[in-house]
Amino acid sequence: MTSFQEYLYQTYITTEPQSLYEPANYMLSLGGKRLRPLVCLAACELFGGKAEQALPAAAAVEWFHNFTLVHDDVMDKAETRRGKVTVHHRYGINTAILSGDVMLVKAYQLLQNYPPELLIRLLDVFSRTAIQVCEGQQYDMDFETTTQVSMPDYLQMIALKTAVLLAASLQMGAIIAQAPTHDAQHLYDFGWHIGVAFQLQDDILDTYGTEQQTGKRVGGDILNNKKTCLLIAALEKADSPSKTELHTWLDNQNPADAEQKIAAITAVFTRTNALDTAQSLMNEHYQKALEHLHQIAVPDQNKQTLRKLAADLMYRKA
Amino acid sequence: MTSFQEYLYQTYITTEPQSLYEPANYMLSLGGKRLRPLVCLAACELFGGKAEQALPAAAAVEWFHNFTLVHDDVMDKAETRRGKVTVHHRYGINTAILSGDVMLVKAYQLLQNYPPELLIRLLDVFSRTAIQVCEGQQYDMDFETTTQVSMPDYLQMIALKTAVLLAASLQMGAIIAQAPTHDAQHLYDFGWHIGVAFQLQDDILDTYGTEQQTGKRVGGDILNNKKTCLLIAALEKADSPSKTELHTWLDNQNPADAEQKIAAITAVFTRTNALDTAQSLMNEHYQKALEHLHQIAVPDQNKQTLRKLAADLMYRKA
Repeated sequence: MTSFQEYLYQTYITTEPQSLYEPANYMLSLGGKRLRPLVCLAACELFGGKAEQALPAAAAVEWFHNFTLVHDDVMDKAETRRGKVTVHHRYGINTAILSGDVMLVKAYQLLQNYPPELLIRLLDVFSRTAIQVCEGQQYDMDFETTTQVSMPDYLQMIALKTAVLLAASLQMGAIIAQAPTHDAQHLYDFGWHIGVAFQLQDDILDTYGTEQQTGKRVGGDILNNKKTCLLIAALEKADSPSKTELHTWLDNQNPADAEQKIAAITAVFTRTNALDTAQSLMNEHYQKALEHLHQIAVPDQNKQTLRKLAADLMYRKA
Repeated sequence: MTSFQEYLYQTYITTEPQSLYEPANYMLSLGGKRLRPLVCLAACELFGGKAEQALPAAAAVEWFHNFTLVHDDVMDKAETRRGKVTVHHRYGINTAILSGDVMLVKAYQLLQNYPPELLIRLLDVFSRTAIQVCEGQQYDMDFETTTQVSMPDYLQMIALKTAVLLAASLQMGAIIAQAPTHDAQHLYDFGWHIGVAFQLQDDILDTYGTEQQTGKRVGGDILNNKKTCLLIAALEKADSPSKTELHTWLDNQNPADAEQKIAAITAVFTRTNALDTAQSLMNEHYQKALEHLHQIAVPDQNKQTLRKLAADLMYRKA
């Protein structure tokens, strides 16, 4: 059968104007884990469908994901993505906005490959998810200027920004395989909790991982004063002196004190049990994900692919 | 029945985050002619449908149109729109990008109100049109830095940038009323030619109209060295001395010479018959539009609304 990579490559747009489509193809060609399309195919197979049937939906999800990356990079003024120059740095901001727009429409066009009864269900999931992803990005931007972000608000933001798309990718695969609605919902919930757990782990590894694990400088979030689950937990749990210490370091943006700032704030995270809190939350979501997978009425051995994928995401070494 | 304005108002998004949805609602509240939704409703009625059936599609088209305006204003660095502050000037560029994105998804969600068999046909028209509108905007940006733009290239650009959406709005209304495919196509072609004629007239009025007719400074396009159908025709038809004169004025961006530049270039337009060329082209498209309307197999008196609308667009006084 056609592999996802081959199929995706066939969806590249080669018509005119190249000035619009080359940036879109460039973005897609940067690679990435292709996590969302892969779980979409796996979900379809879980319910006895052929992975091939899910290819257009998998590609739609990948085009959509890449559209969000192009626009997010513009908003974040990011210079690199996956080790390469971002679209707006290479082609200009205006073209990045417009190419992103066209990528979103292309995602819808890929879904239009499905017959009417299936299409209407896929669109329902897809559009709702697309809206939620935009909401997540907006909350993320809003949080930068919010003094106090609560843990529930934070969890909602990361769920919207990343977990819902992983969940929707799984649900769409299930819908294509004509899975019973409640099983498709369990798979959605599996993806949702895995997505949240993954983001929490991302926060933890940024401070407690190694550069080898994350590909990023250890303590980068701390230096950027990023409101991660660790910082939010620490601010909620710290006693008065620790809180003062945290705020003093947050106000200190002197590059010369960078290493000292990372060490000091990391120490507060550990001392206030912010690390424990974050790890417990992460494990809680991981366990809930596995419970939802367990609930699905298909033979247990069929779930092996998704279970392994979840474990790989949780226990990533590199 | 619910008027379009009432229906559109009900589609405003009032959920959280307001920081994302207020800019979208703000943009929609700025008004405008609501031309695209109105022709969508009229098209539905032309084939015996109830205008009410076309309301979701009409709203979808209006949300889509406003999405393009939000993003175009970012790209053009426009400060005002419909006499009010543009979205990105009021709410920031990042929010304008993201609100625009969500408006595009909202347009799709409005179409999802239709039953599967209708939806699949509407989506086909809508997505193709959305892609074309992006292509038109890209060509428009590309033309700013292209030395020589031919008349066919220019006509293709304005068709993509504006005519196809008017055409699609009409076709969607026809589809909803279950019009025969060839009649829906005639209506599409009617809208396409009217849209092109309207854009050509826009160019002509910018130079030969009054400030009262256009709401803009007479000669604004000339001062911006905008590649309009007049300039393109003049450059194609001018003899060597006139061409030299044109280029000398194009190179002169001194504000002190503004009035003289407008007068001189206008004189070249008239002398080289660029005005005649543009007017002939415009009339040609207007006539073709009326022919397509004529071809549609419904009683002639039913076509009165669309015929009047086309005439109003062509012979606008203000």
